[in-house]
Amino acid sequence: MPLSPEQQAEIDAQRRQKQQTLRAVAPGMEAHLYTARPVLDHGFVRVIDYMGDDAAICQAARVSYGKGTKSVQNDEGLIRYLMRHWHSTPFEMCEVKFHVKLPVFVARQWIRHRTANVNEYSARYSILDREFYIPAPEHVAAQSEVNNQGRGATLEGEEAARVLDILKSDSARCYDNYQAMIAQDGQQGLARELARMNLPANIYTQWYWKVDLHNLFHFLRLRADVHAQYEIRVYAEAICETVADWVPFAYRAFEDYRMGAVSLSAQMMECTRRMLRGEEVTQETSGLSAREWREFRETLAG
Amino acid sequence: MPLSPEQQAEIDAQRRQKQQTLRAVAPGMEAHLYTARPVLDHGFVRVIDYMGDDAAICQAARVSYGKGTKSVQNDEGLIRYLMRHWHSTPFEMCEVKFHVKLPVFVARQWIRHRTANVNEYSARYSILDREFYIPAPEHVAAQSEVNNQGRGATLEGEEAARVLDILKSDSARCYDNYQAMIAQDGQQGLARELARMNLPANIYTQWYWKVDLHNLFHFLRLRADVHAQYEIRVYAEAICETVADWVPFAYRAFEDYRMGAVSLSAQMMECTRRMLRGEEVTQETSGLSAREWREFRETLAG
Amino acid sequence: MPLSPEQQAEIDAQRRQKQQTLRAVAPGMEAHLYTARPVLDHGFVRVIDYMGDDAAICQAARVSYGKGTKSVQNDEGLIRYLMRHWHSTPFEMCEVKFHVKLPVFVARQWIRHRTANVNEYSARYSILDREFYIPAPEHVAAQSEVNNQGRGATLEGEEAARVLDILKSDSARCYDNYQAMIAQDGQQGLARELARMNLPANIYTQWYWKVDLHNLFHFLRLRADVHAQYEIRVYAEAICETVADWVPFAYRAFEDYRMGAVSLSAQMMECTRRMLRGEEVTQETSGLSAREWREFRETLAG
Amino acid sequence: MPLSPEQQAEIDAQRRQKQQTLRAVAPGMEAHLYTARPVLDHGFVRVIDYMGDDAAICQAARVSYGKGTKSVQNDEGLIRYLMRHWHSTPFEMCEVKFHVKLPVFVARQWIRHRTANVNEYSARYSILDREFYIPAPEHVAAQSEVNNQGRGATLEGEEAARVLDILKSDSARCYDNYQAMIAQDGQQGLARELARMNLPANIYTQWYWKVDLHNLFHFLRLRADVHAQYEIRVYAEAICETVADWVPFAYRAFEDYRMGAVSLSAQMMECTRRMLRGEEVTQETSGLSAREWREFRETLAG
Repeated sequence: MPLSPEQQAEIDAQRRQKQQTLRAVAPGMEAHLYTARPVLDHGFVRVIDYMGDDAAICQAARVSYGKGTKSVQNDEGLIRYLMRHWHSTPFEMCEVKFHVKLPVFVARQWIRHRTANVNEYSARYSILDREFYIPAPEHVAAQSEVNNQGRGATLEGEEAARVLDILKSDSARCYDNYQAMIAQDGQQGLARELARMNLPANIYTQWYWKVDLHNLFHFLRLRADVHAQYEIRVYAEAICETVADWVPFAYRAFEDYRMGAVSLSAQMMECTRRMLRGEEVTQETSGLSAREWREFRETLAG
Repeated sequence: MPLSPEQQAEIDAQRRQKQQTLRAVAPGMEAHLYTARPVLDHGFVRVIDYMGDDAAICQAARVSYGKGTKSVQNDEGLIRYLMRHWHSTPFEMCEVKFHVKLPVFVARQWIRHRTANVNEYSARYSILDREFYIPAPEHVAAQSEVNNQGRGATLEGEEAARVLDILKSDSARCYDNYQAMIAQDGQQGLARELARMNLPANIYTQWYWKVDLHNLFHFLRLRADVHAQYEIRVYAEAICETVADWVPFAYRAFEDYRMGAVSLSAQMMECTRRMLRGEEVTQETSGLSAREWREFRETLAG
Repeated sequence: MPLSPEQQAEIDAQRRQKQQTLRAVAPGMEAHLYTARPVLDHGFVRVIDYMGDDAAICQAARVSYGKGTKSVQNDEGLIRYLMRHWHSTPFEMCEVKFHVKLPVFVARQWIRHRTANVNEYSARYSILDREFYIPAPEHVAAQSEVNNQGRGATLEGEEAARVLDILKSDSARCYDNYQAMIAQDGQQGLARELARMNLPANIYTQWYWKVDLHNLFHFLRLRADVHAQYEIRVYAEAICETVADWVPFAYRAFEDYRMGAVSLSAQMMECTRRMLRGEEVTQETSGLSAREWREFRETLAG
Repeated sequence: MPLSPEQQAEIDAQRRQKQQTLRAVAPGMEAHLYTARPVLDHGFVRVIDYMGDDAAICQAARVSYGKGTKSVQNDEGLIRYLMRHWHSTPFEMCEVKFHVKLPVFVARQWIRHRTANVNEYSARYSILDREFYIPAPEHVAAQSEVNNQGRGATLEGEEAARVLDILKSDSARCYDNYQAMIAQDGQQGLARELARMNLPANIYTQWYWKVDLHNLFHFLRLRADVHAQYEIRVYAEAICETVADWVPFAYRAFEDYRMGAVSLSAQMMECTRRMLRGEEVTQETSGLSAREWREFRETLAG
């Protein structure tokens, strides 16, 4: 369970405080607000605030005085057009803020997306909790043999047990020693800004993360992708579920034109055209390298 | 009057649509929502949406589960501390979206602030309205003699009349010709993306502009400053008035630690210390250049 | 001719000043340095400085101590891999700085790309030159009938002549009046920051523009595209020519995987697969809207 | 010693490869290129590339065709003026790229500066080296009693010994287990992207980091400050030394107007003015809170 009773009570209190507003309201997102959606063994994603909805995208695209287009159908058509033709600024007019609890090694990957606002819990100022990510057995996987930066089959038997054992015992020992070093009974106590260096990368941290919808879609396309590391992908997927309820038209357009879309190189597109004309194309006649040809065949197979 | 009856009706309609929300609500900002605050002769600023309030700054600073600090006094103290010590990320957790109508030459200065989202009305796609900024007589000013990028005394008499005459007649003629070129009765009509090049920089454009509070403060410090050009300063001042009602604690801290604050160079601070010890300091003994010394004396005079 | 003899002399002086450096040197780019490549009737693009080369992309990708990979072939293979799989950070490790002279209406479109550094010639501080963009007759085009933000056929005959006449005479008159207003003989002279508002959007401005290679490619993909307005596309094309000489491997990868690539939506890709299996697909059975179907057919036709 | 003989040989090879260039060359920076400047026990900072020099700042500020101003004195005067009046864009026209080796907990603080380009060594793709930061005895410090996010006196005797012991043994054990988990002799071997989570935050990582001069100054002002954590401050100081040799005028202006400057709030400045007029000001009559008053007195004491 990721939340203490006190934390849950604070969340419940916020969910009871309905107020009136003149702003755009997205009912699908109101249902998610503040609630913690569990991710991994101790993590979560929860929506803290949002700005705008599908109509706000249209309103900004038209720089209009009132709401966006005349009808809901027009809104969806316009949004799909904007997405298809890479008009990014209207999507930047929606914003969302999340509270995320996540292992440090996931946070380090996440932060590489720089076009967002972040405020992280400070281990210089505060003491971190004893919470470490220990993978579920089915996610303890071997190094991939084909992809240097990926994982292969699930480890089994003794090897898997040994891994889990190590992760648990090293986490526990490092945390015990972290506590021992900062303790102030009978000693001065090491500065927190130094003691934190003894903590391994599977310890959980948390942050507030705020991003506009365009940049969020970019993040999701890379991190909800099947090639992303499992431990960040589950966060991206949890976010996808909330975004689908927040801006359903934009999310559907994102699924069709980004997430599920395929980019074919100039040469690949030319091969496709030749194949559609009935020509037999092989790697040799394709102009593609062996590696590109393999990727192309995989794309066609779907 | 900057708004047509239809536009005003759309705004009024939006101000009638109260809905319930679980999000943070800033009553001072709700009062401003959608309403156009007139600026210059045809321009305006209106708040379209906002995210967060003073408490949200504290909530992000503490990465908390519920609201920010325990009490309102604590909130203000924390906000002032954050501002004083240049902790910018908590202020980035508030966001605001404006609809602005402004002359093109003001827009060109404004857009230099790149850390914001902008969606401008497209003169490639649409036809611009016949609205030009003509300065009020008291703002028709001579070139400054001391500051290459500033203005001096108000022009008077014939010269002022001549200027206003030119601005009005050139605007009118350019717009007439713009219309004549794009007209499609009896001719094909020039492409709008070309015709727009005939319009002078005092024509009004409009955009949606969205920015986080930290970057907005940076914009306001530069553009609400007494050295900023009058025509952009009045927009900055109009925005200041809405921000003061949105996040009163943060705005007050901004006034004290940024807007009204003074930055003294290492040498200027050393001079100040010597003067406070009763020492007589002159430009010669100050270590400052003549220009710096003059700026320093002005700062001390207040 | 866009350059005065004094300006040309300054450029020539810079091209004579060879110095020694330990940094990465791109011979193809050295040949371009400082030289003004003419664009439109008075504009230009000239490379002022650059950082890095193809090898530097590999070096950064590998976080290496020496040069990038072992061989030039490996460098190209790695660069193509990085481009194909959207690894953007290694491309950000190259940087380029241009001096650009361009009409204001082009500058306004250009500046929408915010991830770059810009320093523009200040019409608040200085007096602009009497130089206006007047389209060549073959570029005076009618409004497109199918695309709201595009142009159609070239205007001919009297209508074309009228347009050129208007553009020339309005530019001339506005500039004459600009000069008359700021003149200080026999009058005080209007502040430059005000007088500039009388100048139409086809006047030339200039700026220094600095950008990393990843963001430059993004700019070029949008602005060298066939749908971009002609007047900005010619600048993008001029830049393309210098980039091809600067980082030939990266530029080729950009051409293949971005510029010449095609993005097919999930539904379009599914249609393609069905067609490759020999199935007859019509708009009705495609799941695509009429508009998407038309765009899809155009893509397949190439 | 931070470098292996092979790494040193690669660096030496790069320092021998002098080539000719037409670009701006900063002799002070050429002397630093590629050389590793040691920081902490295993870290370093080394300059990989740079763009521009002091003259380039002036050249951009004036959007000039040739070099910047007429004389070197004018260059320094202009640069100081630009710095004093917060004109940031000319400083953005210089760029620098570093290769940095640093402990992960320092990297996590560093990366919060988002306006830079980063390419980090991937522990998903590669195996990290067995190198951990172990503080020198004089830097093993107690938690500060006055500052929640700072350190106090150096720990001594048994407590210090215990801390060093823990840091060393936990690092060693975690790394041994990291190696054991990924080993592929007699077992499949855990995926590297998972195994890395067992490594504590004092392990060294490395990255290429590229930033413009304006944003670098912002980084240095915060991280070379006396309140910054020692372990990041030493990196900032090492960078300061290279920047002082690269752009000596700009660096001196930065020292005077930023690093060594003092920001006085509106109220503090008013107190200063009263004191300069000979008035006795106490906390009670100052309008400052107790905390602000203490900070103000410290500033005046210098």
